[in-house]
Amino acid sequence: MNDQSVLITDFYQLTMLQAYDDHSMNDTAVFEFFVRRLPDNRNFLLAAGLEQVLDYLETVRFTPEELDWLAKSGRFTPDFVATLRDFRFSGEVWAMPEGTPFFANEPILRVVAPLREAQLIETRIINLLQFQILIATKAARTRLVAPEALLVDFGLRRAHGAEAGMLSARTSYLAGFNGTANVLAGMQWDIPLFGTMAHSFIQAHEDESEAFENFSLSHPRATTLLIDTYDIDAAARAIIPLAGRLAARNIRLQAVRIDSGDLGQNAARVRAILDDGGLKDVHIFASGNLDEYAVRRLRAERAPIDGFGIGTRMNTSDDCPYLECAYKLQEYAGAARRKRSEGKASWPGRKQVYRRYDNDGRMCGDTLTLEGDAPAGTPLLECVMRDGRRTASQATLAQLRTDAQVQLARLPENCRGLDATTPYPVDIAPALQALADSVDRRLPG
Amino acid sequence: MNDQSVLITDFYQLTMLQAYDDHSMNDTAVFEFFVRRLPDNRNFLLAAGLEQVLDYLETVRFTPEELDWLAKSGRFTPDFVATLRDFRFSGEVWAMPEGTPFFANEPILRVVAPLREAQLIETRIINLLQFQILIATKAARTRLVAPEALLVDFGLRRAHGAEAGMLSARTSYLAGFNGTANVLAGMQWDIPLFGTMAHSFIQAHEDESEAFENFSLSHPRATTLLIDTYDIDAAARAIIPLAGRLAARNIRLQAVRIDSGDLGQNAARVRAILDDGGLKDVHIFASGNLDEYAVRRLRAERAPIDGFGIGTRMNTSDDCPYLECAYKLQEYAGAARRKRSEGKASWPGRKQVYRRYDNDGRMCGDTLTLEGDAPAGTPLLECVMRDGRRTASQATLAQLRTDAQVQLARLPENCRGLDATTPYPVDIAPALQALADSVDRRLPG
Repeated sequence: MNDQSVLITDFYQLTMLQAYDDHSMNDTAVFEFFVRRLPDNRNFLLAAGLEQVLDYLETVRFTPEELDWLAKSGRFTPDFVATLRDFRFSGEVWAMPEGTPFFANEPILRVVAPLREAQLIETRIINLLQFQILIATKAARTRLVAPEALLVDFGLRRAHGAEAGMLSARTSYLAGFNGTANVLAGMQWDIPLFGTMAHSFIQAHEDESEAFENFSLSHPRATTLLIDTYDIDAAARAIIPLAGRLAARNIRLQAVRIDSGDLGQNAARVRAILDDGGLKDVHIFASGNLDEYAVRRLRAERAPIDGFGIGTRMNTSDDCPYLECAYKLQEYAGAARRKRSEGKASWPGRKQVYRRYDNDGRMCGDTLTLEGDAPAGTPLLECVMRDGRRTASQATLAQLRTDAQVQLARLPENCRGLDATTPYPVDIAPALQALADSVDRRLPG
Repeated sequence: MNDQSVLITDFYQLTMLQAYDDHSMNDTAVFEFFVRRLPDNRNFLLAAGLEQVLDYLETVRFTPEELDWLAKSGRFTPDFVATLRDFRFSGEVWAMPEGTPFFANEPILRVVAPLREAQLIETRIINLLQFQILIATKAARTRLVAPEALLVDFGLRRAHGAEAGMLSARTSYLAGFNGTANVLAGMQWDIPLFGTMAHSFIQAHEDESEAFENFSLSHPRATTLLIDTYDIDAAARAIIPLAGRLAARNIRLQAVRIDSGDLGQNAARVRAILDDGGLKDVHIFASGNLDEYAVRRLRAERAPIDGFGIGTRMNTSDDCPYLECAYKLQEYAGAARRKRSEGKASWPGRKQVYRRYDNDGRMCGDTLTLEGDAPAGTPLLECVMRDGRRTASQATLAQLRTDAQVQLARLPENCRGLDATTPYPVDIAPALQALADSVDRRLPG
């Protein structure tokens, strides 16, 4: 599969383009991506995925093979297929930087381009943004409940496909994780890699102690031992003499990992065994069904756990696996547009979000308004692409991660927790309300 | 991103391989993939993803760039990295055919290969199988509650990345859907494509009727009109005269689509309007937040809906976004192995599943036992790969889909519904129990 193919899109994008071509419709269109409402179990969302969207827009093309296939499908005219040969994205993009907290109805991306270009890219833009927002938000929530802990993405195996695994590694790191177990993500984005051994490594040896010793000798500078294959307490006790033998060879045992059972109780018993054996410096790393709620509980119990491997539940965002998000036409040929479907009405026009901060630098309220209006606050959407090219060179993931931490530090106190709270205030500016009213008067119904 | 990269794996696979290499461990290993327990809201699971696993195993290689990067990481010895240069999968694979229903603890895949090969592939095998099982199962449940309806995958935009969107299209079709909106999936696997217009198409026109007419003229053989952008009833009424004008040009309106509000009530009103206008042949297609539960409810209400676009909730498997699945070492160097971690114990040895059928051909019970044992029933795991090559040529997706329908027709009545039911009986054969006991006696604890 070519994951950069322009055909990673919905069939209706192409049927619409055929009709636009037939009727010579290609004026400037303005689309915005936003989330209609915050999920009940999220107090904020974190913008993410912009870099992948810009990569896509800079490179999106039809290959000769794809054009042949479309021509032969019998669903399109030869003239229309010919127009796709030189398809490029030539538009302008405004966006909130990755790592910016945002709220319901706030656009995080605005595309201004000829109608056909802006339409065709809809599906992949939503596909790239929604998922990364989900993961960035869930990872940020975990970081907020465990500010000092080592947090590692362990979720590749149960992510929904390879790209989900890759983007999870990227976005959890952006949102404040320390690293990932995903090797290709480590190579691609220079994310620190973590990982030691599976249960199969222990099982492949006749004796658990032999497995521990073999592994330690092979990885003298990164020795974490998985101790729950058979009997956790017995394994922890067996480590004491092993650590002595290793120390004699200048190998320092770094950590043990526990992957099953009641992690808090298991960690407490293991901590006591290790401490009694003089191994106070050996850390305890926990994994298995963890998410921000489990991490919060373990920390509230004061479980002696120094690091967490967070997998499946984060990489599938299991308590919130999708968002009510949309990429909607807000203006065409100079006129504002508005969808009014039941429960899915949207705010028309080119919009901007202004954010206000209190004296401590904490966010205290946003205003959603039209571009050109100037309420109090700092505008959040910046021009990131013009004429189909990035306006600035690409930031490194490490830079984005640093910026995200600054932004997360400005979240109001009540939005930082996991429980439902008073919604963050987002005002609709009079100018925007007036435009919505005027569009309603113009349209049928 | 290279979605076929061998580095789409966990870092610990490589650290374990380094240790195996250091200690000359590379005897034959047997790993099996299974689901530890069925989710509470699933009465069966459907095997899927085997073709992608076999593609992966036939082609998995380290590229020179990847080897360079590993060598420079400082985590591995040059000798070990050199062994990866010629890495190939040379083993044997046994599996249940895609589209086979299966249950807790039943292996659907068995890998027999030198330890290092069998270990390295773990992450991607789980990544490919788990997700496709989730989607195949959810799609099959939808098909079972709506045997005759048109069912189309609409979920690409909110799938977790491009690969999830692609595999969702593939697997929902395999499980009985009629097609997808995902163009690349249509091209890659010859899946029928569906799709007409977005709300933006209506909004880009000054007038809804003009939008309907423009679209119909451009797609005379596939005219489905989206009628909920502003006012559903008004749009339905406007279609009556349009249909007459189109008929005069030999264009037959096929369907209308409703994407918001109470779909059952909206469909009933629209059906009445269309029928009154003489458009009894125009179908109603519904989309928006649908899943198997919503489809069941709409059918119970006798909503006049002929087809369903099923998106987000299926492609994220939102009510069951992951499985408690594992790829576990069951035998190494001729000796059976068993993990006994709390809540995660597994059955040792090379296993086979025998399935029994009643006089009507319906499944009535399985036996989980060791290879070589021969209880009543038909063995489900077949040898699909030897010496790293498929034993038979690849089936088309259409063939797999036909086979899956045969298999689903044999599900017992109580497993076909959406509600919790008596679990399907899976017996543990005495031979398997005896082996587990003997492994326990051999191991510590």
